[in-house]
Amino acid sequence: MANIQPIGSRVLVKRLEAEEVSAGGIVLPDTAKEKPQEAEVVALGTGGKDDSGNTIEFTVKVGDKVLISKYGGTDVKLDGQDMLILSESDILGIIS
Amino acid sequence: MANIQPIGSRVLVKRLEAEEVSAGGIVLPDTAKEKPQEAEVVALGTGGKDDSGNTIEFTVKVGDKVLISKYGGTDVKLDGQDMLILSESDILGIIS
Amino acid sequence: MANIQPIGSRVLVKRLEAEEVSAGGIVLPDTAKEKPQEAEVVALGTGGKDDSGNTIEFTVKVGDKVLISKYGGTDVKLDGQDMLILSESDILGIIS
Amino acid sequence: MANIQPIGSRVLVKRLEAEEVSAGGIVLPDTAKEKPQEAEVVALGTGGKDDSGNTIEFTVKVGDKVLISKYGGTDVKLDGQDMLILSESDILGIIS
Amino acid sequence: MANIQPIGSRVLVKRLEAEEVSAGGIVLPDTAKEKPQEAEVVALGTGGKDDSGNTIEFTVKVGDKVLISKYGGTDVKLDGQDMLILSESDILGIIS
Amino acid sequence: MANIQPIGSRVLVKRLEAEEVSAGGIVLPDTAKEKPQEAEVVALGTGGKDDSGNTIEFTVKVGDKVLISKYGGTDVKLDGQDMLILSESDILGIIS
Amino acid sequence: MANIQPIGSRVLVKRLEAEEVSAGGIVLPDTAKEKPQEAEVVALGTGGKDDSGNTIEFTVKVGDKVLISKYGGTDVKLDGQDMLILSESDILGIIS
Repeated sequence: MANIQPIGSRVLVKRLEAEEVSAGGIVLPDTAKEKPQEAEVVALGTGGKDDSGNTIEFTVKVGDKVLISKYGGTDVKLDGQDMLILSESDILGIIS
Repeated sequence: MANIQPIGSRVLVKRLEAEEVSAGGIVLPDTAKEKPQEAEVVALGTGGKDDSGNTIEFTVKVGDKVLISKYGGTDVKLDGQDMLILSESDILGIIS
Repeated sequence: MANIQPIGSRVLVKRLEAEEVSAGGIVLPDTAKEKPQEAEVVALGTGGKDDSGNTIEFTVKVGDKVLISKYGGTDVKLDGQDMLILSESDILGIIS
Repeated sequence: MANIQPIGSRVLVKRLEAEEVSAGGIVLPDTAKEKPQEAEVVALGTGGKDDSGNTIEFTVKVGDKVLISKYGGTDVKLDGQDMLILSESDILGIIS
Repeated sequence: MANIQPIGSRVLVKRLEAEEVSAGGIVLPDTAKEKPQEAEVVALGTGGKDDSGNTIEFTVKVGDKVLISKYGGTDVKLDGQDMLILSESDILGIIS
Repeated sequence: MANIQPIGSRVLVKRLEAEEVSAGGIVLPDTAKEKPQEAEVVALGTGGKDDSGNTIEFTVKVGDKVLISKYGGTDVKLDGQDMLILSESDILGIIS
Repeated sequence: MANIQPIGSRVLVKRLEAEEVSAGGIVLPDTAKEKPQEAEVVALGTGGKDDSGNTIEFTVKVGDKVLISKYGGTDVKLDGQDMLILSESDILGIIS
C-alpha cells in the first residue's frame, strides 16, 4: 500500500462519504458561494519553517473530522480512496 | 448535535433573521455597494499565531451581535441553521 | 437606538447632506476620477494592533468633518441615517 | 474659507494653470504614456508612521512646484481652485 | 552526458512512466482540478538563502518519489528523459 | 532654464538620439519583447529611505550611459529635450 | 566595442546557438509549457543589497552555461550577438 507524507504545512485528508458525515447533521446548502466538505485528517505535513521563518505547528491532528474549503488542495486517489492534499490554512474548522 | 471549532483567527457566526435584528433598527440600504448583514458570534477560533507571528487576539466575543461583510466567509448549515465561518477581519463592527 | 462599534482600524462616519457641507465651499467637480465626499466621524474603531503588529492610532477624532474616498467602506443605514464603516486609511483629509 | 488637512503621507497640491507653469519651459509631450502635470504644494499630511512603522518624513515642502503623475490622487475643488490630494510617492520631482 | 544543477530552492525531478509508479497504486482521478504526477528527485538545488534571508533546507532528498503539482516548473528533456525543474514548494508530498 | 530634482530613488535621464548611441554598437533587435533604450543620467533623486527603511544608494552616477527598460518611467520634455523620470530599478545596465 | 554592466542582481547572458549547446544533449521539448534555453553567463551585476536589505550573492559565475526561462529578461543585441539581461532568479540551473 502506498502512503503519502505531505510536505511542510500541508495535510492529507480523506473525503467523507455521505454515510460517514457527522451525526447531528452538518448539511451544506446548495446555494453556498463556497461549499465546504467534510473530511478526515489522515496525515500531517513534515512541518519545519514557513516562509516567514516561523515554526509550523498544526492545530488539527490525525483523526480529526474537519470542514474543508471546496476550492483548494489537490485531489489524489490513494488505494481507491478520494484523498486531498491541502494547506492547513484551507481547513475551516474541526467538527466535534 | 454537531459543533464546529473554527481554526486560527476564524469565527463561527449565526445569521440573524429579520425578526432577530437589533431593535433600534439597522436597515441595510438596497443600493449599498456591499450589503452587510447582522449575525451573532457563536464560536471563536483556536487562535495561535498569525502569518506574521503575532498572537491572535479576538475583539469580538461569543454572543456579540455583529455586522458582517456580505462577501466573505463560507456558508455552513449546522443543525438546520445558517451559519458562516469567516475571518474576524471580515467583521465590520459590533452592534450594541 | 442601535449603535455600531467599528472593529480595529475602522471608523464609522455619517455622510453629510448638501446643507451640512462646510461653509467656504468644497465643491467636488463632476468630472473627478474619484469623487470624494464629506462626512462626519461618529465612532472610532476598537484599535489594537494592525497586521504588522503596530499599535493602531487614530488621526481623526469623533466630530471631525472629513473627506472620504468615494470607493471604499460599507454602507449602513443606522436609525434612518446613511452611515459608512471604512478604514481610516480611506479618509483623505480633515476639513477645517 | 475651508481648508483640508491631508492625513498621513498625503499632500494637498494646487494644479498650476498654463500661465503659472515654470519659466524655462517644461513642456509635456502629447504622446507621453503618462502625462505629468505641474502643481504647487499647499499642505503636507499629518505624518505619523507608515504601514511599516517608519516615521513619515516629507521631501517636499509647502510652496514647492512639483511634477505629479497624471494618474493618482483625488481631485477636490476648494474655494474654486482645482486641488488634488495625493500620496507624496505620486510626486515625481521638484521643479526649480 | 549533460547534467543540470538547479539553482537555489529548485529541484530537478524525473517524471515517472506508468510502469514505474509506486506499487500499491496512487491513481490520479481524471476529473481532478489539478492532476498531480509522480516523479523521482534527481538533484537538489544549490540552496543558499531565500528572499527572506532564511537558509534554504530541503525536505526531499535525491531518490525520493514525490507527488508534484501538474502546473509548475519547467520541462527539460535531458538525455532523452522528461525532466522538470521546479521549486520544492511545488512538491506536494513524498510517496513511501 | 527649468530643472527637475527627482524624488527618492528616481533618476532623471535624457534619451539618446541615434547619433549619440555608444560606439561599438548596441543594436536593439526589432523583435525584442521589451525593447531597451539608451539614455544618459542627468540627475539622481533625493535619496532618503526606501519603503523597507533602507537607505537609498545609487549605483549609477550623473553622466552614465545606461540601458533603460522601454516600459517604465514618465516622459517629460525639458527645454526641448526628451527626458524621462524613472526608478533606478528600471535601469538595466551601465554602458561602457 | 561596447560593454554592459548589469545593475544589482541582474546578469548578462549570451544565447547559445544550436551548434554551441552542451554535448550530451539537453533537448527542449516542443510542447513544453515554458521552453527554457541555453545561454552562457557573460557578466554579473553590480550586486549590493536587494530590497530586503540582504547582500546580493551570485550563484552563477562568468562562463557558466545555464538554462534560462524563456519568458524573462530583456533582449539586447551587442556587437551582433543576441544577449539578454535578466535577474539571476530567472536562471533555472547550471549545465555541466
